[in-house]
Amino acid sequence: MELKNIKKVGIIGVGFMGGSLALALKKSFSNFEIIGHARSDKAFRRLKKAKVLDRIERSDKRIAKESDILILATPVSVIINLLKRINPFLKKGAIVFDLGSTKEEIEKAAEKNLPKEVSFVGCHPFCGSEKKGVEEARGSLYQGSLCFITSTNKSSYLVERIWKKIGSKVVRATPAGHDRVVCFVSHLPHLACFSLINTIPAKYLEFSSSGFRDLTRIASSSSGLWTDIFLTNAAKIIENIDKHKKHLNEFRDLIAKGDRQKLKKLIKKANKRRDKLS
Amino acid sequence: MELKNIKKVGIIGVGFMGGSLALALKKSFSNFEIIGHARSDKAFRRLKKAKVLDRIERSDKRIAKESDILILATPVSVIINLLKRINPFLKKGAIVFDLGSTKEEIEKAAEKNLPKEVSFVGCHPFCGSEKKGVEEARGSLYQGSLCFITSTNKSSYLVERIWKKIGSKVVRATPAGHDRVVCFVSHLPHLACFSLINTIPAKYLEFSSSGFRDLTRIASSSSGLWTDIFLTNAAKIIENIDKHKKHLNEFRDLIAKGDRQKLKKLIKKANKRRDKLS
Repeated sequence: MELKNIKKVGIIGVGFMGGSLALALKKSFSNFEIIGHARSDKAFRRLKKAKVLDRIERSDKRIAKESDILILATPVSVIINLLKRINPFLKKGAIVFDLGSTKEEIEKAAEKNLPKEVSFVGCHPFCGSEKKGVEEARGSLYQGSLCFITSTNKSSYLVERIWKKIGSKVVRATPAGHDRVVCFVSHLPHLACFSLINTIPAKYLEFSSSGFRDLTRIASSSSGLWTDIFLTNAAKIIENIDKHKKHLNEFRDLIAKGDRQKLKKLIKKANKRRDKLS
Repeated sequence: MELKNIKKVGIIGVGFMGGSLALALKKSFSNFEIIGHARSDKAFRRLKKAKVLDRIERSDKRIAKESDILILATPVSVIINLLKRINPFLKKGAIVFDLGSTKEEIEKAAEKNLPKEVSFVGCHPFCGSEKKGVEEARGSLYQGSLCFITSTNKSSYLVERIWKKIGSKVVRATPAGHDRVVCFVSHLPHLACFSLINTIPAKYLEFSSSGFRDLTRIASSSSGLWTDIFLTNAAKIIENIDKHKKHLNEFRDLIAKGDRQKLKKLIKKANKRRDKLS
C-alpha cells in the first residue's frame, strides 16, 4: 500500500484519542475519507454532534470491508477482541493499526489472528489519557507528542509517515521494550496516583492544594482503559509496584531513624531528576 | 496589640513564601513598614534586587527588637531554633507568627521558649511550596488559598484578620489536627512523589508525558524544607506510608489475581474522589 492509494480510513473507537486522530488526519490528508464506528444509536448521535468524521457507520464489519487503513482506538481488551473477530471482513492489502497503551499482547493477538494479506502496525501515541469522550477531541493533540511504533514491517514506515505528518515524534521500540518503558513512566505513576487518592480519607480532600490537584489529575483516567492496561502488563506493573514500595521504605526507614542527611540527599535526588524535565 | 498600633513588621526568611507575604501585606496595609532579614551579603543583594521589602537588615536580633509583628518564614527546624534563640530580643507585647508546614513541634517550642509578654500564633498558609526563592514571590499568592491557624489566644484573632485581609481563607485546627490533615493531603503526596520519581530509571524519564510532568511537579520541592517537614511529623508520615503501601498492595493483589471487576471498582473509587476536586 502506498500513501497515495489510501482513500478510506476507518476508526473503531471514536472517543478522545480516536476523535482527535480523525481531526488530525483530516487536516493533514484532506483526500482521506474518515469513517467512524458508532456502536449504538446514542453513540451515533454523539458522533454526529461532535463533527469529527466524514461518515458514521453502525457496522464495524462494513468499516473493516471498506477501509484501506483501519484504526483500532478502543481500550486494549477490545482491540484484542477486534483482532480476533474482524479477520474475515478486512480488505485485502489493508493496514490495521491501533492506539493501545500496552503492546506485547496486542502484537501477539495480531500475529495470531490477522490474515497474511493484511499488515498490522502497533502504535501507541503517548498523550493525555485522562481526557474522555469525543467532545474533548482536538486536532492538535498529537502535535509534538511521542508515538511509539512497535512493528517493523514495511507498512510500519508508511504509518510512521502518517504520524510524523500530523506532528508526532515517532519512537521505535520492541513490544516488550515499549511495555517496560511505559510501565515506568505511565503505568506505575497512574497506579500510584489511584492508590494515593484512595489512601487519603475523603473528608480531608477539601483541604487539598493546587499542587495536590496537579498531582492527582491522572487519577481521573478511565477505569475501563486502565483496568485493561494493568491486566495486559501485569508482570511488569507488579514488579514496578514492588520496586516503588522499596523506595517508599527507604524514606520510611530514614524518617524513623531521624537521618537528616541521607533523607535530604534522597529528596535532592528526586529534585534533580524532576528538574531535568520541563 | 491592636491592628491600628502595628507599625513595624519583621520577616525572617524572605524566600518565596516570606517574600510573597511581604508584597501582600504592603498592598493591604500600606502603613506597615516591612523589614526583612538578610543572613548574608549575597542575600542582601538578592533582596535588594527583588524589591519586596521596605528595609533590609543583616541582624535578626535587631529586627526582633523593632517588630510589632515578627514573622518566621523559614523551614521548620530553623523556626524552632529561632524560637529558642530570639527570646531575649523580642519587643514586649509583640506578636510572633510563623508559616511552618508542621505545627505540633513549633507550638511546643513557642510555648516553652517565648516570654509571657509575647504571643505566638501558629500559621500555615497552604500553597505552592515547590517554588523557591524571593525572585518568584508574588503578592497574589495567598489570594484564595487556605491558611491554618493552630493557636487560640487573643492575638490569633488579630492574625486571622490579617490573613483574611490579604485574601486567605482561614481554617482553625489544633496543632495535632493540622499535622494529621496535611500529612494526608500534602506530606504523603510529596513523599510518594519523591519516591516515585526515584523509582523510575533516569534514562526513561525522557519518555515522560505532560501528565507525568504535572504529576511530578512537586518533586521539585525544596529538600531542606521537606526534610524538616518529614522529621517534625515523623510518626504520622510513617503511619501514612504504611497505609499507602496497603493500598498499593490492594492493587497488586487484584492485578496478580486478574480480578478485572474489583480492579475496575478500585479505579472508579479513585476517579470519583478526584472528580470532586476542581
